[in-house]
Amino acid sequence: MFRVPGRLVTCAIILALATSVSAEEARRALVLSSDFATTERFVASMKGVALGVDADLQIHDLTHHIEPFNVWQASYMLAGTIDYWPEGTVFVSVVDPGVGTNRRSVVARTGTGQYVVTPDNGSLTLVADQQGVLEIREIDETVNRRPGSESAHTFHGRDVYAYTGARLAAGVISFEEVGPLLEPKIVRLPYQQPQRLEDDSVVGNITHVEMPFGNIVTNIPKSLIDGLGLSPEDGVTVTVEITQSGKPVFRQEIPYVPSFGYVDQGSPLLYSDSLQTIGLAINSGNFAEQYEVRAGTDWTIRVTRLSARE
Amino acid sequence: MFRVPGRLVTCAIILALATSVSAEEARRALVLSSDFATTERFVASMKGVALGVDADLQIHDLTHHIEPFNVWQASYMLAGTIDYWPEGTVFVSVVDPGVGTNRRSVVARTGTGQYVVTPDNGSLTLVADQQGVLEIREIDETVNRRPGSESAHTFHGRDVYAYTGARLAAGVISFEEVGPLLEPKIVRLPYQQPQRLEDDSVVGNITHVEMPFGNIVTNIPKSLIDGLGLSPEDGVTVTVEITQSGKPVFRQEIPYVPSFGYVDQGSPLLYSDSLQTIGLAINSGNFAEQYEVRAGTDWTIRVTRLSARE
Amino acid sequence: MFRVPGRLVTCAIILALATSVSAEEARRALVLSSDFATTERFVASMKGVALGVDADLQIHDLTHHIEPFNVWQASYMLAGTIDYWPEGTVFVSVVDPGVGTNRRSVVARTGTGQYVVTPDNGSLTLVADQQGVLEIREIDETVNRRPGSESAHTFHGRDVYAYTGARLAAGVISFEEVGPLLEPKIVRLPYQQPQRLEDDSVVGNITHVEMPFGNIVTNIPKSLIDGLGLSPEDGVTVTVEITQSGKPVFRQEIPYVPSFGYVDQGSPLLYSDSLQTIGLAINSGNFAEQYEVRAGTDWTIRVTRLSARE
Repeated sequence: MFRVPGRLVTCAIILALATSVSAEEARRALVLSSDFATTERFVASMKGVALGVDADLQIHDLTHHIEPFNVWQASYMLAGTIDYWPEGTVFVSVVDPGVGTNRRSVVARTGTGQYVVTPDNGSLTLVADQQGVLEIREIDETVNRRPGSESAHTFHGRDVYAYTGARLAAGVISFEEVGPLLEPKIVRLPYQQPQRLEDDSVVGNITHVEMPFGNIVTNIPKSLIDGLGLSPEDGVTVTVEITQSGKPVFRQEIPYVPSFGYVDQGSPLLYSDSLQTIGLAINSGNFAEQYEVRAGTDWTIRVTRLSARE
Repeated sequence: MFRVPGRLVTCAIILALATSVSAEEARRALVLSSDFATTERFVASMKGVALGVDADLQIHDLTHHIEPFNVWQASYMLAGTIDYWPEGTVFVSVVDPGVGTNRRSVVARTGTGQYVVTPDNGSLTLVADQQGVLEIREIDETVNRRPGSESAHTFHGRDVYAYTGARLAAGVISFEEVGPLLEPKIVRLPYQQPQRLEDDSVVGNITHVEMPFGNIVTNIPKSLIDGLGLSPEDGVTVTVEITQSGKPVFRQEIPYVPSFGYVDQGSPLLYSDSLQTIGLAINSGNFAEQYEVRAGTDWTIRVTRLSARE
Repeated sequence: MFRVPGRLVTCAIILALATSVSAEEARRALVLSSDFATTERFVASMKGVALGVDADLQIHDLTHHIEPFNVWQASYMLAGTIDYWPEGTVFVSVVDPGVGTNRRSVVARTGTGQYVVTPDNGSLTLVADQQGVLEIREIDETVNRRPGSESAHTFHGRDVYAYTGARLAAGVISFEEVGPLLEPKIVRLPYQQPQRLEDDSVVGNITHVEMPFGNIVTNIPKSLIDGLGLSPEDGVTVTVEITQSGKPVFRQEIPYVPSFGYVDQGSPLLYSDSLQTIGLAINSGNFAEQYEVRAGTDWTIRVTRLSARE
């Protein structure tokens, strides 16, 4: 075996430290989210720019199949994914119907220790409510903009957001070097917070439609329904009303059951999903399609005990 | 130039060894396969959890577009891809219609030296037949489960399969540390093995429909058809019968030819594909759509020499 | 603190150099582009083969959703993305309707310092015109072919293109070791170059249809339209004619405006896009679908000043 004199051990320690520090720097993943789809060249251009900043970056996709211009969905995707990524991960979320207008370009530091690079157009709404937004900085484009991109060829997702996100993930800039600190007030999309009404009904928002199954995801926690004295084990029936911007879309009496198999195939059910929030589905069917229900800020759901209204 | 004394060379050797060993450890890729699609946040959550285990993992997608709940297709995708990945690669395959039931969660070591992390629900069927399954271990969820995931928020693909796969790929655990060794008996989906019948016909299974072209992939090796004395160069015609669960779906006399251009546009053909197995197609058309033929355990194909039955 | 004698500093420098050189070697990304979609196992097989060459490769997708066999689109995707990737990046582009024929398999070195591994079937057309092709080498398949792939199981995208691309990206081979230098003449798809005609109209090619919006991308630079004395700020109307292989498909008088909002919803407009080329769109609509216009070598567009023809 080798003889390892003291000095060389010292050398090994120094180098090991140096290596681990620089490795640590490179360990923040960059996660991209957009409505660009993967059929065009836009996503690949963003990745090329990011690798130009640091050839060793870990780059991943959240999804690029957000409905075009649907900022609410962008917000839902971020808030539903962030918790599962390591601290320090940098998310770049570009759903930007206002490109070219004066919406701010920001980086938010979340309560869970991650970063979101995004136009401040509402995409941080659910992140602020679920993970929290501790600080926001406006991107200083005099520094954090792809060199040579100050022309009509500009594509902000690539030249500002992917570029800045890559620099932050690679440790080329610190969060402080993103740009000036802003008032910690983001643009929020208003939506129906879940709450119990005086008449013993519960209201909330339709947050998402899960594809390709068409199941309805709401923001009503199971605990609120528990508070009405209702349990899926009791085989109760509730009245479910869905409105869009106040206009009625759906109203029906539906069983509240533990899972799909408790109702006939083709029948609707109310249930508590894996996140302990209330959902709607059709056993072996597609609720969203059949009843033309969608998700978003203007979609509200109300669940009422039958007995409470009779 | 530098003067390099003996001791320092020793130091360099030691460090080089250390580096190469740890690099070796990190060199197993993690490959994800599922029916989750890429429109939702599920795949991204799995990747986040995997990078939380090891920030330097190589993570790739096999496909996330398996038909929902189609375990057979999951099996086909694994068996058709594994051979092209390096030894030690860890595949995570999650098509799990039985989530919440008592199917076992396992890691299989294949005859080709790779690992498959999956619910044991049939997804290993074709891997067992093609690559071989040498050992299976049941995942010990008291150890190999994402910390903090023991609640109603559980999503096994993320909390058990991606997490365990990442630990194995990263070298955090050895194969032995996955959990207890099981009898090497996997859940197998039964299907028609290719064979020659006494009346000089050949039967087999319809394994797959290749999208978007709609070509039919079977498990009948060209050699079995050779055995009937038939060659694509001879311009012969054969009788092809397709049944689903024994019910006839298709019966027609079809030319057996070297490739598409040997028949008119819009005409069906029998041919030998790049894997030397027998396939069915329509020249410039979609066989699966036109004749409503699908793939799976219950789909059987029979090829007969015309002369043999006349 | 540590005492760091001179010799050990030397050691550290030597090792740091060694590390940075080998890291440099590994820093070329491999970018894959094809018409294979992501529903099948083909893309994953290519990636497995590439990681078998070098387990640390950075592998990314340009897109795998090119229309099947559409070599023109392959060319468009390459030319539109290459500029945003670091020097040395290796692109593998496989849209190969001629697989099995004697089209050459090549690697092109571009004027921007990147490499494209591809069948020479026209996929380099727009790269040659936009980035330039400085040198082409034919792939020597006696060396640059996946070992064990010399059989009927051959899939060139995997066994030749991905394999050679990975070797080049990983620094296993140099560009010279790809194979013999060819005459720098690629297979070119002919298309209408943008030009001004004598009657004060401008002609060009319809290069692409941007999905899912259906906007028409042309190769006519804004400057050519400027040359007609037309400016989007002036509220002018032009005559737009579109032909496919010389046959008229569309003819209409259309306003030339700065952006979508300048015309009514549902109305067509001519505008200058972010690349300073002329495009066609319908405000809140899909031009390509509504007027059945596609892109490709045989699609020509002509823009004429109204006054010029009156």
